[in-house]
Amino acid sequence: MAEPTPAPAPPAEAPEVAGEEAGPSKKALKKAEAKAKKEAEKAKRAAERAAATAQASAAAAEDHATGNYGQETHETKLSDDAIEISLKTLNDEHLGKKVKLRAFLQNARMQGAKMAFVELRETSNWAIQGVVAANADGSVSRQMVKFIGLVHPESFVAVEATVEKPLEPVKSCRVSNYELHLTKLFVISSAPAMLGMTLSTANKAVTNFSDEEAPAEAPVEGVEKLSIAGEVSGPPAASMITHLDNIVMHKRSYVQQAIADIRVEVKHLFRSYLRDQGFKEFEPPCLIAAASEGGANVFRLPYFEKEAFLAQSPQFYKQIEVLAGRKRVFCVGPVFRAENSNTPRHMTEFTGLDLEMEVTDYREALHMLEGVLLHIFRTIKKTCADEIALVRSVYPSEEFLLPEEGKEVRLTFAEGQKLLREEGPEEFRNVSDFEDMSTPQEKALGALIKKKYNTDFYVLDKFPSDARPFYAKEDPANPKVTNAYDFFMRGQEILSGGQRIHDPVELEARLRTKGVDPNSPGIREYVDFFRQVGAPPHAGGGIGLDRVVAWYLNLPSVHLAAYYPRTPKRLLP
Amino acid sequence: MAEPTPAPAPPAEAPEVAGEEAGPSKKALKKAEAKAKKEAEKAKRAAERAAATAQASAAAAEDHATGNYGQETHETKLSDDAIEISLKTLNDEHLGKKVKLRAFLQNARMQGAKMAFVELRETSNWAIQGVVAANADGSVSRQMVKFIGLVHPESFVAVEATVEKPLEPVKSCRVSNYELHLTKLFVISSAPAMLGMTLSTANKAVTNFSDEEAPAEAPVEGVEKLSIAGEVSGPPAASMITHLDNIVMHKRSYVQQAIADIRVEVKHLFRSYLRDQGFKEFEPPCLIAAASEGGANVFRLPYFEKEAFLAQSPQFYKQIEVLAGRKRVFCVGPVFRAENSNTPRHMTEFTGLDLEMEVTDYREALHMLEGVLLHIFRTIKKTCADEIALVRSVYPSEEFLLPEEGKEVRLTFAEGQKLLREEGPEEFRNVSDFEDMSTPQEKALGALIKKKYNTDFYVLDKFPSDARPFYAKEDPANPKVTNAYDFFMRGQEILSGGQRIHDPVELEARLRTKGVDPNSPGIREYVDFFRQVGAPPHAGGGIGLDRVVAWYLNLPSVHLAAYYPRTPKRLLP
Repeated sequence: MAEPTPAPAPPAEAPEVAGEEAGPSKKALKKAEAKAKKEAEKAKRAAERAAATAQASAAAAEDHATGNYGQETHETKLSDDAIEISLKTLNDEHLGKKVKLRAFLQNARMQGAKMAFVELRETSNWAIQGVVAANADGSVSRQMVKFIGLVHPESFVAVEATVEKPLEPVKSCRVSNYELHLTKLFVISSAPAMLGMTLSTANKAVTNFSDEEAPAEAPVEGVEKLSIAGEVSGPPAASMITHLDNIVMHKRSYVQQAIADIRVEVKHLFRSYLRDQGFKEFEPPCLIAAASEGGANVFRLPYFEKEAFLAQSPQFYKQIEVLAGRKRVFCVGPVFRAENSNTPRHMTEFTGLDLEMEVTDYREALHMLEGVLLHIFRTIKKTCADEIALVRSVYPSEEFLLPEEGKEVRLTFAEGQKLLREEGPEEFRNVSDFEDMSTPQEKALGALIKKKYNTDFYVLDKFPSDARPFYAKEDPANPKVTNAYDFFMRGQEILSGGQRIHDPVELEARLRTKGVDPNSPGIREYVDFFRQVGAPPHAGGGIGLDRVVAWYLNLPSVHLAAYYPRTPKRLLP
Repeated sequence: MAEPTPAPAPPAEAPEVAGEEAGPSKKALKKAEAKAKKEAEKAKRAAERAAATAQASAAAAEDHATGNYGQETHETKLSDDAIEISLKTLNDEHLGKKVKLRAFLQNARMQGAKMAFVELRETSNWAIQGVVAANADGSVSRQMVKFIGLVHPESFVAVEATVEKPLEPVKSCRVSNYELHLTKLFVISSAPAMLGMTLSTANKAVTNFSDEEAPAEAPVEGVEKLSIAGEVSGPPAASMITHLDNIVMHKRSYVQQAIADIRVEVKHLFRSYLRDQGFKEFEPPCLIAAASEGGANVFRLPYFEKEAFLAQSPQFYKQIEVLAGRKRVFCVGPVFRAENSNTPRHMTEFTGLDLEMEVTDYREALHMLEGVLLHIFRTIKKTCADEIALVRSVYPSEEFLLPEEGKEVRLTFAEGQKLLREEGPEEFRNVSDFEDMSTPQEKALGALIKKKYNTDFYVLDKFPSDARPFYAKEDPANPKVTNAYDFFMRGQEILSGGQRIHDPVELEARLRTKGVDPNSPGIREYVDFFRQVGAPPHAGGGIGLDRVVAWYLNLPSVHLAAYYPRTPKRLLP
């Protein structure tokens, strides 16, 4: 095959770095939407025209390449002796060799009647340029070139090709120093002529996280820093509704692939670290007989002749495991909250990373939780550096600051409130040591701590008794506070935990102090577990995986870190 | 401290090997129950007497050891310079040293007025004998000995002691070549005077798995080989109801600890193997908008203004991941079935191990699933040898036979039916190649395959179209069968999987053939995913974790392999 002149780079598909402009105006959003609609219609008309032309010319000329392209049947028509490649590991040894690849075709365009260019993507943003040119021997015909030039973007194709060096690096593809000279291309599965959302749009920052149908009307807290891509050149950005309605394209975007890869690593590191520390994984049930943390915000369902609830936390089951002598346990699984909160921080189903352990001093658990999180943060900074950079190119954020080893920031709740009173904003001059913090207080404290200690990650310990549930163990030295703690990332809570009361008599007394009847349903059964045997003192905590990923990357919504975000208004996909 | 003569071994707490006698008679069960009741009353009276005696004698004599025993307060009174030990790693270097340990006291008894023996257990069945004897200097008083001799079994205690060699190995404890000469003992948390179920009973084979309150009336399939321990000497065995009502003691038993440890490893090996093969973990949602596998057997719940369902399988979400270019994914999580089946094989919530992958040929997925399971079975045979032996000592079973490498048994469904027709029992002489197998057929085929191929693990492939759901991809070479398979262990299904149709047009046609309206709720949304983009061909499968553990060990019920079994009648604990 004659070597074609490398084409000028096709329009950039790579995500652009969003600027630091002010929030989107209603006008800008409307303009962007109008533009998108117009472009979509234009593309549709073009596709129809092209299809008609292709049919006509196919009928006009004899074709000697019919075995080298088309829709794939069940039989594969690629050569057995072609080397199967992966774009990530393509190297100089492949130069000049006959290779094969199955990939998403993310872009195709004709360059005159005898040549076409495509971009083939394997996973994440690993893409390569493919070139096809009609040749003299007829093994690549004009019809074949036309067929390839008109393949719908995001179709899944199988190609056979020779690996060549392009004359100059292909800027639009991650694999920039090789290109594929196509000799065969079969469409295994065709995308529709019009995608619900293009890859370019999917790779832009989501413009709006509201669940409401009129996205432009309700800009959401936290997105103010994002630029509206529709205002600059290139494809428009879309709302979270559009992203979720086009879930496959949402997930095919480089940015979502990168977030997903980071999430995979966080989860893996949580498990591997704890396993090394002697923890054993177990599975708590989701279906339970009584509301685990009081009756509010719990999903109920008919269960044969009874009623069941969906667990809001695996805590009681973690405690049973420790009572049963498992010493150190963890679990990773779904937890449910029937909370009608439509904010970028909330979901009705999310993934909990939970641990519980036998302790002599509850700080053993605090340090374990701190240890596993610091291990995760320090590791992903290195192992996910590419993915983090990619996410930042779409959702700009400052680096997540960590304390130096041995200089972890652990304040008591009272110390935190004191800092707020003395150095915080005016409205927090009178905060009390014995009342829980509000979200704005937490954020203000986060800013103060960052300024003072240069860290985005810290612990507040010794929460006041009034701010914790009945099972929180009081500090024996000061019964006004508990051996309970919260962990924060960038001023937002990601973990709640502490020591639990392990003595049934103490538990009953505490329930009465809190005004709860120890014989009420759910509570009775809970207290009774501690009557079955002698219980080891224990402490633990629960981490929200989605929040850890979202706040590490400073994403504008936790919904971007979840695989299938569940909100009061959304159960699909 | 004077070295006490090692006591005769206390009554054996280790599980006895159950014999091969015939099933329990009603009479035997009643006898066992009566005996248990009588013994319990006896124990209660003894405990009361003992407590009274202890109080009286404590008042009678002056005590110089008051700082060395008692109920623990928040301050620990153990010496800072005592070495913290773990029973699993206790060795000769500890001999003569002052050590400390927190453990469950599983047994205590007086030997005269001046000496007492205890058994201290750490995790699983790691127990050691402790000896305490009143001494001349008064640091161990008679009152202290009495206090220790009367601690309720299964209390959680902290001890300080010197490590010594016993005169002869302590048969009743796993740590038989060391004993602890106690100098301090504090009860951190006391068990009740009367346990709901003793450790000895918890370690016996469960007698009955019925959910009904009259266990003796309904012996359950699969328990016929178990002896009734109540008929031989030693403590009585109990029903699953008693075990679950005493969940902490159930879980403290050696046999449940061993099963749990095996389960932990199976799950870990599933993940680590797939991770090495390039799979990425993800979390599918539990709350979904439409019944994932048709409307039957699905839990429904009110969800704000809508209705939600609990996912019966993560399959559609695995498929979306592959469509989204994730290539190879797996997930481990709960799945739900609202099936009113009260059998030892069924639960309403169980843990699914699922994978899905892009394929050229669906057998790539079949081999991957076979590979991960063989890896698990071959590994646990070595790494969990102790635990497997321990389980077998309570629930006897034959070794789980595996095919030699390269000789995996993969029959087509038709070959399986042929084997049944030609060599199976009379009633299966007319089984059809195009009708699904019944459970008895599966079991009979399992026996035939074991005889013929010497394996308990095998695959049936190419199931007839009529036996598979609408999404099963037909074999292009023979549309009467599908590219779908089941995996079996000891004649029982543990995995179902296959290639899925990836083309929306083919999917719609198939739905109509099956008599399903492609526009019905749930189905419409499913088909539409394949319209969003071009989809890679893919295949996968779902494994029931509970079943894999239960059938590998040939347990009489899958409920023994689950942490918190959920059945139509049971949501607690």
